[in-house]
Amino acid sequence: MSMNVLGYAALAAKEALVPHRFIRRDPRANDVVIQILYCGICHSDLHHVQNDWGRARYPLVPGHEIIGQVIGVGAEVSRFRPGDYVGVGCMVDSCQHCGACEQGLEQYCEEGATLTYNDVDRHDQMPTYGGYSEKIVVADRFVLKIPASLDLPGVAPLLCAGITTWSPLRHWQVGPGSKVAVVGLGGLGHMALKLAHALGAEVTLFTRSLGKEQDARRLGAHHVVVSTSDEQMGSVKGHFDLIIDTVPYVHDLKPYMPTLALNGTLVLVGYLGELDPVLNSTPLVMGRKSVAGSVIGGIAETQEMLDFCGQHDIISDVELIDIKNIDHAYQRMLSSDVKYRFVIDMASLQA
Amino acid sequence: MSMNVLGYAALAAKEALVPHRFIRRDPRANDVVIQILYCGICHSDLHHVQNDWGRARYPLVPGHEIIGQVIGVGAEVSRFRPGDYVGVGCMVDSCQHCGACEQGLEQYCEEGATLTYNDVDRHDQMPTYGGYSEKIVVADRFVLKIPASLDLPGVAPLLCAGITTWSPLRHWQVGPGSKVAVVGLGGLGHMALKLAHALGAEVTLFTRSLGKEQDARRLGAHHVVVSTSDEQMGSVKGHFDLIIDTVPYVHDLKPYMPTLALNGTLVLVGYLGELDPVLNSTPLVMGRKSVAGSVIGGIAETQEMLDFCGQHDIISDVELIDIKNIDHAYQRMLSSDVKYRFVIDMASLQA
Ligand SMILES: [Zn+2]
Ligand SMILES: [Zn+2]
Ligand SMILES: [Zn+2]
Ligand SMILES: [Zn+2]
Repeated sequence: MSMNVLGYAALAAKEALVPHRFIRRDPRANDVVIQILYCGICHSDLHHVQNDWGRARYPLVPGHEIIGQVIGVGAEVSRFRPGDYVGVGCMVDSCQHCGACEQGLEQYCEEGATLTYNDVDRHDQMPTYGGYSEKIVVADRFVLKIPASLDLPGVAPLLCAGITTWSPLRHWQVGPGSKVAVVGLGGLGHMALKLAHALGAEVTLFTRSLGKEQDARRLGAHHVVVSTSDEQMGSVKGHFDLIIDTVPYVHDLKPYMPTLALNGTLVLVGYLGELDPVLNSTPLVMGRKSVAGSVIGGIAETQEMLDFCGQHDIISDVELIDIKNIDHAYQRMLSSDVKYRFVIDMASLQA
Repeated sequence: MSMNVLGYAALAAKEALVPHRFIRRDPRANDVVIQILYCGICHSDLHHVQNDWGRARYPLVPGHEIIGQVIGVGAEVSRFRPGDYVGVGCMVDSCQHCGACEQGLEQYCEEGATLTYNDVDRHDQMPTYGGYSEKIVVADRFVLKIPASLDLPGVAPLLCAGITTWSPLRHWQVGPGSKVAVVGLGGLGHMALKLAHALGAEVTLFTRSLGKEQDARRLGAHHVVVSTSDEQMGSVKGHFDLIIDTVPYVHDLKPYMPTLALNGTLVLVGYLGELDPVLNSTPLVMGRKSVAGSVIGGIAETQEMLDFCGQHDIISDVELIDIKNIDHAYQRMLSSDVKYRFVIDMASLQA
């Protein structure tokens, strides 16, 4: 029962995405077959399509913020049945036996988690293809349940942007009384504001321009601090327990370090690369502060986040697009012209 | 009852220490007057004497690893009485009301702790002078009790080198099953090995030369890894929960990052300055690792460490010297020719 599936794929580096038919791997007894309804557009989709990281495999079907409806389940699947609304994020499998997997931290799987696209299935070595497509086949333990109360297109970005900010908020134990700051107001940053607010923290957005103040407050920020103002930065000296830095390019962390409280942590969630210019150890040593990193989140904590979002009526702010306009959406993403996430209406694939 | 006290002081930058008489501040009702028996020699003593940090105040009497005997107590002091063996470390006072002080973390006092030397008393503005002297006057809450079982000269370095490594071991919850590595085998490093071993951790020394292996094992290391060997570094990939980096000068942290386990922390305790060459965020993000810092420790945890050392019969490896040979000791320190701490026998001051 191999599936011939329609999607959008990059067929070679630097080429535009085009409609493309491909074969999904055969479902196994623990698999869920999902009709895709919506798929969020993450910056890493663009990086893969552009082959920015030099490891794209073609044809490449992006998309790891997937919302769909179950249309079939394997014999061993009991948690899902046809008709259920479900989600799939950045991972579709992991080794299931390493220390990280045993802790439910599949994103740190010592053997490497199987990524939703541009990877290879660990059982049958078939390529993995993402959510810019009609259907996907995923092992049941990597399929998330979607709270019925939430508007589906806005749930899609929770599967990557949401969990990427939720996981550090939970790991560093943010709750009522916590003081959290967010650097960068994009897909990740806007979710960090919403989630930190709902967790009961005092939430601040660091921004370089005052133009974002009104939107930041609407999204959950109690305060907005202009990071280029010495006076404003001085007013939050020693203040924050956790700074979630969502900036996706190289940038200077030094201005933020004095704003951390004793035992405070600045956690990088959006940038892989050199920490240039160099950090200075003095604020770390003299305030027992940390610079840390975090990537997406485990499956159990992703479900926890979705349930929390259901209880608190949290979704992403999205702009729904037709898949035929994907190139235009990518161009607007490159100029940060999106509030705050594009989501593809997959019905447009059939039109 | 102002005290005229004999000590050794630097009278100007770059000058050798010389015998010097000075006035200690008047004891207050909560003060303990201590006859100094031994004083450890810390690298920061040398930095201050050389005015490396540009903030030396002269005359400057160094010394913050002080062991002595109580010879007088103020009217409000009930915890100590004449004859008690006591210790004084890097701090002699703090604000006592900030968030850090309220948590017993006086070393991070928001108003700045009063340092044992080269500082100013926060009540009468008298200069503070350190332990290279006959006597010292210290508020009772900054005076430590010394376990009777321990050999006094070897206890002196616990007051700085000991607590500086103990505090991160405790903060990052090292115990049986923990995997700890130590970078650098000097005053701090040798205490880190002893304390981590006694806490039940699996202990590894990172070294650049194999010559230190035998001594490292005697001090508590279960393993020694040559940090310049790719093969040996590869053998501890993803291994350590905590790396205590005691190196006092700028050095490359990158080789150590892959040896941290998921959620692992590299904590800097010996170096203030730029983290050059630049760090890369990838190991932080992809393994939720942290780079942190830590400075000395609070008074309560210093007492806890001293009590622990009493129970586990831990002291520093010291070389006892005559104060007249202080310059020679400083020269040997500069060439790392000490195993592992010089301690001044203060009886030599009277000879
Ligand atoms: Zn993503
Ligand atoms: Zn695994
Ligand atoms: Zn010291
Ligand atoms: Zn204080």
